[in-house]
Amino acid sequence: MKAEIIAVGTELLLGQIVNTNAQYLSQELAALGIDVYFQTVVGDNPERIRKAIVTARERADLLVFTGGLGPTLDDLTKDVLAAYLNRGLSLHKPSMDKIEELFSSRGVHMVESNRRQALSIDGSVPLHNAAGLAVGNALTEDGTHYMLLPGPPREMKPMIDGPGKEWLRTLLGHEQPLYSRLLKFAGIGESNLEAKLLDLIEAQVDPTIAPYAKEGEVAIRVSTKAATQAEADGKIDATVEQIIERIGEHLYAQEDIPLEEAVIQLLRTSRRKLASAESCSGGLLAELITSVPGSSGEYTGGVVTYTNEMKHALLGIPLAQLEGEGAPGAISESTAALMAERVQKLANSDFGVSITGVAGPAESEGKPVGLVYIAISERGKETVVYPLQLSGSRTIIRVRAVKTLLYRLWLAIQN
Amino acid sequence: MKAEIIAVGTELLLGQIVNTNAQYLSQELAALGIDVYFQTVVGDNPERIRKAIVTARERADLLVFTGGLGPTLDDLTKDVLAAYLNRGLSLHKPSMDKIEELFSSRGVHMVESNRRQALSIDGSVPLHNAAGLAVGNALTEDGTHYMLLPGPPREMKPMIDGPGKEWLRTLLGHEQPLYSRLLKFAGIGESNLEAKLLDLIEAQVDPTIAPYAKEGEVAIRVSTKAATQAEADGKIDATVEQIIERIGEHLYAQEDIPLEEAVIQLLRTSRRKLASAESCSGGLLAELITSVPGSSGEYTGGVVTYTNEMKHALLGIPLAQLEGEGAPGAISESTAALMAERVQKLANSDFGVSITGVAGPAESEGKPVGLVYIAISERGKETVVYPLQLSGSRTIIRVRAVKTLLYRLWLAIQN
Repeated sequence: MKAEIIAVGTELLLGQIVNTNAQYLSQELAALGIDVYFQTVVGDNPERIRKAIVTARERADLLVFTGGLGPTLDDLTKDVLAAYLNRGLSLHKPSMDKIEELFSSRGVHMVESNRRQALSIDGSVPLHNAAGLAVGNALTEDGTHYMLLPGPPREMKPMIDGPGKEWLRTLLGHEQPLYSRLLKFAGIGESNLEAKLLDLIEAQVDPTIAPYAKEGEVAIRVSTKAATQAEADGKIDATVEQIIERIGEHLYAQEDIPLEEAVIQLLRTSRRKLASAESCSGGLLAELITSVPGSSGEYTGGVVTYTNEMKHALLGIPLAQLEGEGAPGAISESTAALMAERVQKLANSDFGVSITGVAGPAESEGKPVGLVYIAISERGKETVVYPLQLSGSRTIIRVRAVKTLLYRLWLAIQN
Repeated sequence: MKAEIIAVGTELLLGQIVNTNAQYLSQELAALGIDVYFQTVVGDNPERIRKAIVTARERADLLVFTGGLGPTLDDLTKDVLAAYLNRGLSLHKPSMDKIEELFSSRGVHMVESNRRQALSIDGSVPLHNAAGLAVGNALTEDGTHYMLLPGPPREMKPMIDGPGKEWLRTLLGHEQPLYSRLLKFAGIGESNLEAKLLDLIEAQVDPTIAPYAKEGEVAIRVSTKAATQAEADGKIDATVEQIIERIGEHLYAQEDIPLEEAVIQLLRTSRRKLASAESCSGGLLAELITSVPGSSGEYTGGVVTYTNEMKHALLGIPLAQLEGEGAPGAISESTAALMAERVQKLANSDFGVSITGVAGPAESEGKPVGLVYIAISERGKETVVYPLQLSGSRTIIRVRAVKTLLYRLWLAIQN
């Protein structure tokens, strides 16, 4: 099946927001085995939306719309598609009840335009909106399938993941579904990973092997079509085994979770706790770790000692270590070690980790941009320090330093 | 002039990357007064790229392509457009020299396919690539303008900003250029801001007033076409004055900077320093502040005291304040005040700020998700605590708490 994703919204054409919906939907449709051939963005203009429908019908079997389901007069997707198909619009009772309930529970008068969000194209399947008020729609006419989803990602995602996919699966019917498994790697760059798997990637037929990279992490999706989950697992397992043979030490998860979540999970199962001391990363490590829900059980907290005075005041590092003729300085192996050791003791945690270096834009202490020391102090063990020479912008250096530390920590917890 | 942005790349259709180029180009074209009516994404397939050109020609005067200029056989944009226009491709000597120079300086044998990056459509204007090897192209035929830009954002941006815009400006010729000014607001929601400016927004003709929102910040772009900067300034000033009259206390910048940068600037000019103590925000405040280059002069650092033990160990807050029958608890007005005061004293800074609350997903201390206390302690002044009741996901609650604190701090520094 060939699909086209059509995002409706003038704010996209003005560049006020980025079209992340297209990425999410493309991934989800690919995972179902549906090929996306085009993505289109069109403004809140009825004639141009209509033209986009005509064009898309010529090149796709499935048109997935996002946006334009809201209450305002700018929200036109349902109206235009209904007119194009010569169908009417009717109130979807459960959606209308939900809207009225919400307003009465808030004791607020309901503006009449909110009724528009409960409208449904006649003869379509209503798609429940678990996170908002606008009901979605799905229908088939003359061999073309149409699906209408809301624009805000937090409403769009649960709708496609729930009732949207259910509807698509019935469409796909007898076609063999696509099964896939995501492998996540750390401590290895995308090009290095690709080089090590090149012959596998080039020879791939079934399952397919698709690598892609995010800053500091690399993922591989292994996919195959099969009649059953068991049949798929058999095929995928064999490929995964070949991959693990070559780069298994970098594989931290067989599901789509960030590295910090894998670290928190490991700490949890091994009943250990972590504290952090950051300098150049400025709290990014703490922020990533605490973005994992429930991390307060494993992460006690930490310090962001951006200045030498704070390294002294909070961690008790002697100023003579940090400043003056012949001192190692804040950006040094010994300061990194001290930071990790002191925060581990202060927090009475099992692990203390630290990051100190030069994120840029300018050098510091006469040391070059990108020089970063990361350290891991484990209760009762020798502290280990890793010097890194990173490249990229200030932001990228910070991210890479933090992800490298998380990878080293992930290895350390397992030993 | 009507434009269509066409991104070429199968990786976009697979959802491996998000199309940030479309956003950037839409903003830049809008700033030149060029209307973007459609954005299209098409894969690395010659027949479908050709169809995308045919469709775009029917609905736009200017086609801006990104991607498909690289060395591999998948990079097809120039080939397909040249064939469509019945033109040839020739080597652009300066680009070829640059490629050969690069390879010989590295002492690496040049793979023949790299020559493809120096190809230029006959009769087109070559666009210099300041950050990479693939040369861009610009040309006009039969009243349609074509511009070919590379896909990687770090190559695309300097090309459009430099030679790309120069070429577009000559196209626009006698048309008056568009001038605009960005106003940034904090401490006010988008709907509230719109409500206060509704009559101005509805009556707008020239200058135009376009509000848009990012999490915790709201921006307004005021734009007008004029012959000179001075003429534009006169018109824009008058509109800005009307806006300031109504919501001036929320206006923190007349340029596109985040709130944390405005706070750092204010601290710098008033020669004051800041320290932070975070609980539920987990380092997000520190991370945002230190993402501003040069912030180490104004931000000393802080603590992320995620557990009660750390609030006690690092800040010396009595455990009796935090736990046990009748204690105020970690999520309380008095703990927020203590955290701000203690970190201000520890850092010997002018301001100490704190955030403690329930980011979710579950309640804590029997207190509801979204309840957050923020506090500001200023040397020699009474500490001020603000209780907030925020809604949204864990991530959104954290961002809103931090941005609200930054807004309150921004006000406090000025008093």
